[in-house]
Amino acid sequence: MSEPLAGPVAIIGTGLVGTSIGLACRRAGLDVVLHDASPEHVRTASGLGAGRAPAPGDRPQLVVVAVPPDHLAEVIAGALADGDAVVTDVGSVKTAPLAAVAGRPGVERYVGGHPMAGSERSGPLAASSTLFDGRPWAITPHPTSDVAAVELVEELVALCGATPVWLTPEEHDRAVARTSHVPHLLATLVAGRLAAAPENHLALSGQGVRDVTRVAAGDPALYSQIVAGNADAVLALLGEVRDELDAVIAAVGTGDRDGLRDVLERGVAGTRVIPGKHGGPPRPMRSVWVSVPDHPGELARLLSDSVASEVNIEDIRIDHDPGRPVGLVELVVEERRAEHLLASLESRGWVTHR
Amino acid sequence: MSEPLAGPVAIIGTGLVGTSIGLACRRAGLDVVLHDASPEHVRTASGLGAGRAPAPGDRPQLVVVAVPPDHLAEVIAGALADGDAVVTDVGSVKTAPLAAVAGRPGVERYVGGHPMAGSERSGPLAASSTLFDGRPWAITPHPTSDVAAVELVEELVALCGATPVWLTPEEHDRAVARTSHVPHLLATLVAGRLAAAPENHLALSGQGVRDVTRVAAGDPALYSQIVAGNADAVLALLGEVRDELDAVIAAVGTGDRDGLRDVLERGVAGTRVIPGKHGGPPRPMRSVWVSVPDHPGELARLLSDSVASEVNIEDIRIDHDPGRPVGLVELVVEERRAEHLLASLESRGWVTHR
Repeated sequence: MSEPLAGPVAIIGTGLVGTSIGLACRRAGLDVVLHDASPEHVRTASGLGAGRAPAPGDRPQLVVVAVPPDHLAEVIAGALADGDAVVTDVGSVKTAPLAAVAGRPGVERYVGGHPMAGSERSGPLAASSTLFDGRPWAITPHPTSDVAAVELVEELVALCGATPVWLTPEEHDRAVARTSHVPHLLATLVAGRLAAAPENHLALSGQGVRDVTRVAAGDPALYSQIVAGNADAVLALLGEVRDELDAVIAAVGTGDRDGLRDVLERGVAGTRVIPGKHGGPPRPMRSVWVSVPDHPGELARLLSDSVASEVNIEDIRIDHDPGRPVGLVELVVEERRAEHLLASLESRGWVTHR
Repeated sequence: MSEPLAGPVAIIGTGLVGTSIGLACRRAGLDVVLHDASPEHVRTASGLGAGRAPAPGDRPQLVVVAVPPDHLAEVIAGALADGDAVVTDVGSVKTAPLAAVAGRPGVERYVGGHPMAGSERSGPLAASSTLFDGRPWAITPHPTSDVAAVELVEELVALCGATPVWLTPEEHDRAVARTSHVPHLLATLVAGRLAAAPENHLALSGQGVRDVTRVAAGDPALYSQIVAGNADAVLALLGEVRDELDAVIAAVGTGDRDGLRDVLERGVAGTRVIPGKHGGPPRPMRSVWVSVPDHPGELARLLSDSVASEVNIEDIRIDHDPGRPVGLVELVVEERRAEHLLASLESRGWVTHR
């Protein structure tokens, strides 16, 4: 039953994700047909090389639904009814749209998907054929999905350069509640407390609070749709968070150090289970701090000197504390290479901090 | 009454912060006397050039108490009783130690302080005379503090290269509850939920959850002391957070989109009030994404090409998504310079994403 992905691919919704999929399919030589409620978006995406406007008689092999969460179910149902194509989507929740089409004729041709990319940019102009390179892309078949339909979606994921992660729709929604929606909501609660703060209190802000709150800058209209669409999984976890918050409040209120420490230790354990770069197990990393004068050439010189040390820099953070005449740059490297890097940078005249 | 800071400076506690203050004072030519419960720490700090061991007849002009939060009050009281020096400390909470010495003879010679530096490293070997360069350093006089004592502490802050922020002890504690302790606790709650997650769910982790949870990796023993020492201010804010969490739970549970959106919008507003680099008002920034092959020389080449574009890179993030053959590097630059940087990098052959 399995057949190769040969096109045409129809893409409904030419925002960042839809247009990027179009670009990746065109790069592979497939015929791509673009649909959008806004004809201007179709023209823009088409002008970028993501595909062409629809023509009479188009019979897509695969339909990719890339519309906002609120419209997913309706557009998926329409696509299933409108032909015999395999239908997938890129929505950030998976059980609600499935429930809306379950039992309908053709539902065996529907296989949900969710590429983990692109949430901070939007619109076709932000699109790129490489947006999905190496990113996780959840594929969420349901019990009645055709095997051939699943395989066609797997071909799309491979063509986009992404790494497939197979989950049931229910598992997917619980996974993103935990790794994305609940972290977003709690970052929002921290940031919300800052909005009410006196200005001189905010002068004590360091890199920690900046990191915790960064995602909270995301579009409220989009995130309220995403969270509302994953209400059950989000509520289950928020209930756990509230219980643990109550435990923290009780521990702080009664001076129960052991109770507080237990919660903090579970947090430390949680930071250690996030997968490492390239999906491998977390490797022991160490940070090396270097003072860098705050003008453009110095950071490049530091990186170039690090290269000369033959140590791979896994991550970089630039310290943004107010009033610094020199910046403090944190280089994250494998623990076993840290001393070598420090010695090498020091021999080149850099001021390091261990 | 005011007199210049001429030393000797006595430092009690030769961990990261105490030893770094010693190094900064020695750099300025002051006589520094080091005390620690561990004679080995004194030898280490002294070997690093942070000062000398005590000698009979030492009469410090200024005592800096740099011991763990649990011992602050007792050591400050001892230092006030033990001579006529001005006494300051570097503890991360300010009202509890003050309450413990209020009303004692000599309390007018005590002026609290808190440099915002160093929480992720520890021990004298991590010390640096430049640790405080441009960092905020809270100075927290109480109503009965001598003006001359406050001025002496201001001289210490200036000598360390830090930026003074004057707050009452109560304001300070409320400020760090908001900008540090509560963000830490909520990051801990997010991370704690990850510890219990199935491994295949964690495969969907992106940069967002990494950022939110990074601070939660901090030492539970230290943070339980810090939070317990600032219980009142932390509890007041945690109560607000619980109320807002209940509002989120109610909004998600009843499908109240407007309520959810209100909370998300307050979060966005909060991310905008964090002061910008160098203490100025937040400037409009924009992120530029560039695909970078994952081997050492490429990142340095990118930075070097950015320098050639004459655009100052305000921040860098390296995308760590699992399985990526190329890394995605995010360069944060002033909004008005972003297009110029993109064009310049593209002309040098880089693949960019807008």
